[in-house]
Amino acid sequence: MFKGFHQDINLISSGMVGILGIPFDGFSSFLRGASLAPARIRETLYSDSSNMCVESGFCLSDDSRWIDLGDLVIKNSTEAIRQIEAGCAAVLGRGGLLLTLGGDHSITYPILRAYTQKFAHINILQFDAHADLYHEYDGNKYSHACPFARIMEEKLADRLVQVGVRTLTPHLVQQASRFGVEIVPIDRWKNGSNLTFSDPVYLSFDMDVLDPAFAPGVSHHEPGGFSTREVLEIIQSLKGRIVGADIVEFNPVRDPTGVTGMVAVKLLKEILAKILGA
Amino acid sequence: MFKGFHQDINLISSGMVGILGIPFDGFSSFLRGASLAPARIRETLYSDSSNMCVESGFCLSDDSRWIDLGDLVIKNSTEAIRQIEAGCAAVLGRGGLLLTLGGDHSITYPILRAYTQKFAHINILQFDAHADLYHEYDGNKYSHACPFARIMEEKLADRLVQVGVRTLTPHLVQQASRFGVEIVPIDRWKNGSNLTFSDPVYLSFDMDVLDPAFAPGVSHHEPGGFSTREVLEIIQSLKGRIVGADIVEFNPVRDPTGVTGMVAVKLLKEILAKILGA
Amino acid sequence: MFKGFHQDINLISSGMVGILGIPFDGFSSFLRGASLAPARIRETLYSDSSNMCVESGFCLSDDSRWIDLGDLVIKNSTEAIRQIEAGCAAVLGRGGLLLTLGGDHSITYPILRAYTQKFAHINILQFDAHADLYHEYDGNKYSHACPFARIMEEKLADRLVQVGVRTLTPHLVQQASRFGVEIVPIDRWKNGSNLTFSDPVYLSFDMDVLDPAFAPGVSHHEPGGFSTREVLEIIQSLKGRIVGADIVEFNPVRDPTGVTGMVAVKLLKEILAKILGA
Amino acid sequence: MFKGFHQDINLISSGMVGILGIPFDGFSSFLRGASLAPARIRETLYSDSSNMCVESGFCLSDDSRWIDLGDLVIKNSTEAIRQIEAGCAAVLGRGGLLLTLGGDHSITYPILRAYTQKFAHINILQFDAHADLYHEYDGNKYSHACPFARIMEEKLADRLVQVGVRTLTPHLVQQASRFGVEIVPIDRWKNGSNLTFSDPVYLSFDMDVLDPAFAPGVSHHEPGGFSTREVLEIIQSLKGRIVGADIVEFNPVRDPTGVTGMVAVKLLKEILAKILGA
Amino acid sequence: MFKGFHQDINLISSGMVGILGIPFDGFSSFLRGASLAPARIRETLYSDSSNMCVESGFCLSDDSRWIDLGDLVIKNSTEAIRQIEAGCAAVLGRGGLLLTLGGDHSITYPILRAYTQKFAHINILQFDAHADLYHEYDGNKYSHACPFARIMEEKLADRLVQVGVRTLTPHLVQQASRFGVEIVPIDRWKNGSNLTFSDPVYLSFDMDVLDPAFAPGVSHHEPGGFSTREVLEIIQSLKGRIVGADIVEFNPVRDPTGVTGMVAVKLLKEILAKILGA
Amino acid sequence: MFKGFHQDINLISSGMVGILGIPFDGFSSFLRGASLAPARIRETLYSDSSNMCVESGFCLSDDSRWIDLGDLVIKNSTEAIRQIEAGCAAVLGRGGLLLTLGGDHSITYPILRAYTQKFAHINILQFDAHADLYHEYDGNKYSHACPFARIMEEKLADRLVQVGVRTLTPHLVQQASRFGVEIVPIDRWKNGSNLTFSDPVYLSFDMDVLDPAFAPGVSHHEPGGFSTREVLEIIQSLKGRIVGADIVEFNPVRDPTGVTGMVAVKLLKEILAKILGA
Repeated sequence: MFKGFHQDINLISSGMVGILGIPFDGFSSFLRGASLAPARIRETLYSDSSNMCVESGFCLSDDSRWIDLGDLVIKNSTEAIRQIEAGCAAVLGRGGLLLTLGGDHSITYPILRAYTQKFAHINILQFDAHADLYHEYDGNKYSHACPFARIMEEKLADRLVQVGVRTLTPHLVQQASRFGVEIVPIDRWKNGSNLTFSDPVYLSFDMDVLDPAFAPGVSHHEPGGFSTREVLEIIQSLKGRIVGADIVEFNPVRDPTGVTGMVAVKLLKEILAKILGA
Repeated sequence: MFKGFHQDINLISSGMVGILGIPFDGFSSFLRGASLAPARIRETLYSDSSNMCVESGFCLSDDSRWIDLGDLVIKNSTEAIRQIEAGCAAVLGRGGLLLTLGGDHSITYPILRAYTQKFAHINILQFDAHADLYHEYDGNKYSHACPFARIMEEKLADRLVQVGVRTLTPHLVQQASRFGVEIVPIDRWKNGSNLTFSDPVYLSFDMDVLDPAFAPGVSHHEPGGFSTREVLEIIQSLKGRIVGADIVEFNPVRDPTGVTGMVAVKLLKEILAKILGA
Repeated sequence: MFKGFHQDINLISSGMVGILGIPFDGFSSFLRGASLAPARIRETLYSDSSNMCVESGFCLSDDSRWIDLGDLVIKNSTEAIRQIEAGCAAVLGRGGLLLTLGGDHSITYPILRAYTQKFAHINILQFDAHADLYHEYDGNKYSHACPFARIMEEKLADRLVQVGVRTLTPHLVQQASRFGVEIVPIDRWKNGSNLTFSDPVYLSFDMDVLDPAFAPGVSHHEPGGFSTREVLEIIQSLKGRIVGADIVEFNPVRDPTGVTGMVAVKLLKEILAKILGA
Repeated sequence: MFKGFHQDINLISSGMVGILGIPFDGFSSFLRGASLAPARIRETLYSDSSNMCVESGFCLSDDSRWIDLGDLVIKNSTEAIRQIEAGCAAVLGRGGLLLTLGGDHSITYPILRAYTQKFAHINILQFDAHADLYHEYDGNKYSHACPFARIMEEKLADRLVQVGVRTLTPHLVQQASRFGVEIVPIDRWKNGSNLTFSDPVYLSFDMDVLDPAFAPGVSHHEPGGFSTREVLEIIQSLKGRIVGADIVEFNPVRDPTGVTGMVAVKLLKEILAKILGA
Repeated sequence: MFKGFHQDINLISSGMVGILGIPFDGFSSFLRGASLAPARIRETLYSDSSNMCVESGFCLSDDSRWIDLGDLVIKNSTEAIRQIEAGCAAVLGRGGLLLTLGGDHSITYPILRAYTQKFAHINILQFDAHADLYHEYDGNKYSHACPFARIMEEKLADRLVQVGVRTLTPHLVQQASRFGVEIVPIDRWKNGSNLTFSDPVYLSFDMDVLDPAFAPGVSHHEPGGFSTREVLEIIQSLKGRIVGADIVEFNPVRDPTGVTGMVAVKLLKEILAKILGA
Repeated sequence: MFKGFHQDINLISSGMVGILGIPFDGFSSFLRGASLAPARIRETLYSDSSNMCVESGFCLSDDSRWIDLGDLVIKNSTEAIRQIEAGCAAVLGRGGLLLTLGGDHSITYPILRAYTQKFAHINILQFDAHADLYHEYDGNKYSHACPFARIMEEKLADRLVQVGVRTLTPHLVQQASRFGVEIVPIDRWKNGSNLTFSDPVYLSFDMDVLDPAFAPGVSHHEPGGFSTREVLEIIQSLKGRIVGADIVEFNPVRDPTGVTGMVAVKLLKEILAKILGA
């Protein structure tokens, strides 16, 4: 099921973090291309452009608790949801944790289904320009505009906090209220905001939470977002145990200078260090 | 005179806002291309990339008080000033208000001429990297570097406040002083600055007030400008009745990734909501 | 049903040609973005970059037998096929002919369904890097990889000639043989090849028939294609009465310098002149 | 009057060729940016990307009969025509020949005025997608769409041959006929065409004669043009004594990958070698 | 020594072809970036943009005689030559053949050193805009401008045929003469040229043999090159047994739209099929 | 030794500032291209896009105490260090000060060697995403990753303050500690930080200190950096006498829209004004 890149799933053991590509964008509503992200992120990560140390000084190259598992091979849109859940469950079942690379945001729903098989209580911290809470979109309940509606309906998370949201329709406001979603609109975000979680945290990072100036390589440009620095500071100062994460919606087709790919790599390194507690 | 896009000028009635393209860049001093902006802005606005709601939650799609009037057809540079004034006066004469899409900044002068036929007292709030107060430029008194010199000479505005200016020559400083222009240089702008106006406000938005990182698609890159977020916050917190606005100097030729077009659309929506009092 | 651009369908009368945008890319298998093509083509066509005369000297601006009908509004993927057929049938029913602007190649199937309601015998000349004859693709029988399988199954055309094809799988070879499709592989194309048709011809032009050097703005780059000049010469020397055409698969997201948009406009003008017999 | 780059006009002596930048685009009708071309061409020419030898094997670096004169400083549009003529006349007056780098095509008219002070009979070979024979354009008789109307009116050339033209309006056809211009439309160009001139030849090279695939960096994209190879072969096989040349309409703003700049440099080297008789 | 991508060197057996990335550009004289090519080529090859069949109809996906060996890990410039020779010799020693992906052109010299350990007589067919025969360049005998000087000096090939060369200095002409190199300058290439070899052929493909319109993603743009179609036809009609090949000098940093990467992939597929005799 | 651009070194006299290009990138570890920066900076500086006044109101065009010296001609990598030191010493020897335009960061070491011949005590303020303190890199002690290790070893500066650093390896931390380097990591930078120096200050500005959103045109993208505004404010509020500066690592190959070039020009103007005490 895994198209091995560097290593085998059997190398995952308890406490390890597997980086897993999920090159699926079949549920994108506007542009495709996010399925090309895992390959581009690896290309950038393994180039000689930068080193493997994060801003705290910790070096991933000195730590053997993470592994690159390669990509999940998705057969087609019909099978996607089931396959992603099964693939993630396999890693979690071996005691591993996951940092997945999308693909579009629709992958977060099956990932969370896998996580709840293992974690009784999960809090989700979602970085996103959009709430992704549509009941359905263009007639598709699994659209990348809908994953958090499915997650909340199925009670896969105890708490959902959304940071960076800057466009809402009345329907989305209603959905957020119905599910008790905590939306922190970007214009009310304060530098000193403290995000503290008591339960295990799953971090879902949609690249479009960043302003398009910092991350042009996304399918939906929504101006007025965070700078990369702001986002790094939120992640670095986060209080809580992170047990999983995804980086989604990076679209290499819209990244001619490679800047967005490098931002995704920087986030991958900082989030991975955070999961490793380093 | 109007190259109709969606609707007819006869559909404008009192209190309505007409969006009007003015695809004219014949008075640009360095690069042309701003005349392509109205078409690109419409292309982006009507795509499925985003919705029609603004950050306050108000949805333009639910409001029938605005209309897209299409573009003014400009015969040539010689006729431009007269034609723009006449076209705008026609809309204002029917009781409508205007949100125009340039074109270069030279269009603001004839627009203001039309406005003063209707409004006795106007305050202008200009977002711009430049003061645009040259007495003449390259021998042309109607250059896009000169509109506010013309406006102040003819006393078309009681007050002119310039925000974001970050390059001034001695001549411009002299002109500002002569006309009593209130320049708020960007390095003295404070987050808490409050812009409050008692008279009706005309908002003239030159895209180059934004840092080129946020809006590369302008003819004159002037680094060190505002972020999109900063500009949105200024507009959203503005005190005063806005009775007209323009968005100028977007140059699609310099916008390969489409980011600047999306910023223009975001501003169009936020400013339109502001004019509608929503 | 029509989102009017310039004119109304009621202005279509017998012998006229309607330009109709069909901004639909819901059946694209790899990238989306082709739905943005009609808006970009109009933006380019109506800019002042070039005139409205074709290479033969004939000027479209002097001819009142064509009209820009604006875009069909497609509700969603489920309705698309039916809606496109109905929209086209409405124009054909008034005695008009169609030059449609896609959208992805899936639109050709419903267009042909509309055409056969009016024309008993149709020959299709398809310019394409691909045969688009898959029985189904990713589980979708209406995928942009399949339209000509549907067309031939339903016998909507008496003859299908494909020019420029340069990638074939064994399944496609089998399909071509089953349906009697005449594939002229690009490496066997001779400058002097003469395309002569006795029945009315429908011309389906997939932009990826051009080498990506000439048309980078397509979803599937297939190197080794025609130059723009070669394609113009084939079209200009074509023998037969053209009664309809489409230009599909232009993807503006991949066209940062605007060159592909200009090629699409050039083809639009030359093909329109050809349909008008000029 | 000269903004010296490398050398002084006094170093020009009889038989030498001066390369002279004329950074003027004030008479461009659609986009500006061609004034940036001389700086970009020099940047590319003097980089280490390639050597100074042409395809015949002759090396410009071994020849002291050419010199880079830097740029003419143009005060403003009103003075431009007069200044360009005077600047060129100064070089020709010292016995030198000129290879000028535009700037838009409007510069060719004053250059020819300078040439006729020295050469009694001139034949012009113009490479261009357009005829540039408008009597006036947008009310401007000196527009870049008009230089050859002026040249022929004033009988500055005995013969004008245009190669690569692929868009003509009825007015232009009429002008060509009136002035006896020999237009060789691109679709009637044969590989074996032989261009032979008995009088001294002035070569005016508009970069848009090339297909936009080969030269995207021009203001007016006109698809269906020559390849760089085709153009090189025409120049290399040209029969006649070349006494002057210009390379115009390169617009660096539209050349993100630098390819067009390199084509301009290649042409500069080949044409220079041709003038030197090498 | 191998950074495994998909498979292990032990899977190579007699008659198989290994695809091997050599991400080394330490001997590039002008720009770096070619070391990023193997990752970008794989990203493109394994995307869903196209299938694995070549123009003859043969499908690589149905053939088990080739394998992707991943990349050679090069320690540093000092070790590079020795490491590349050893890595290639390891594959050849197991009876395999090689299709290597550069990296810059300096890798061809050590590859040939490995080949001569196995093949007594080798003919090289080099596609290149440049002769790469400098005795030394910038003081470096292993520069990417020198590999074929080294190869001919050490008599690693019986015959060297260069196709597409279009820039030569006197020194290079002298070197070619000294080594008996057969240069076929691009302007003397005839469509009907037949390349026939009796000995085993090694094909060295420098991407800059293509015109920059077709392959902008190279470090040295040399306008006037082949089209992709021309190159495909030469390769497809080649007479002789190909026992090895490299594709070098693709520089992803200069390939914003991804077109060059797709050309490299197309060539990889066609050349691989040719080596497999399919 | 100088490839003169505008002026001669003999025009330098005491108290003057010479702008000197050093187009050398032979010690770049990842990408080349920085050698193209001086030409691109001049192209941008001398274009008509902006004026020559800085934000304080002071106009460089009214000051005769600075001069553009053109570029140093570097023979090859072996000679580079020695040549740069000699070239700079020549200017300093005439009583001039230097504002150099790189080139990669390796040029700062020989520049400092020249400075210490004249200044007994120098403090360096380095803007950089990286510390550039490697003892050696890829076996090269003069790599652009090493200049400040050389400078501190040879005690060419009394004090080294690094601002904007956001990636460090354990080796670099150790080197900083060994040499007493004051690193101000970017996440601990406070808006109100005051940089005050008592000794003469040399300012070394690596463009990658800026976030890639503001300066995509650098070889090493390191997201999370300063905005252009932040950097301008630091420079403008700096306390101390600046006696020299360099602007390095601008790579035009990665600057398709020209934004980074304009940022470099803005910095050049502001820093030059600062050196002139204006």
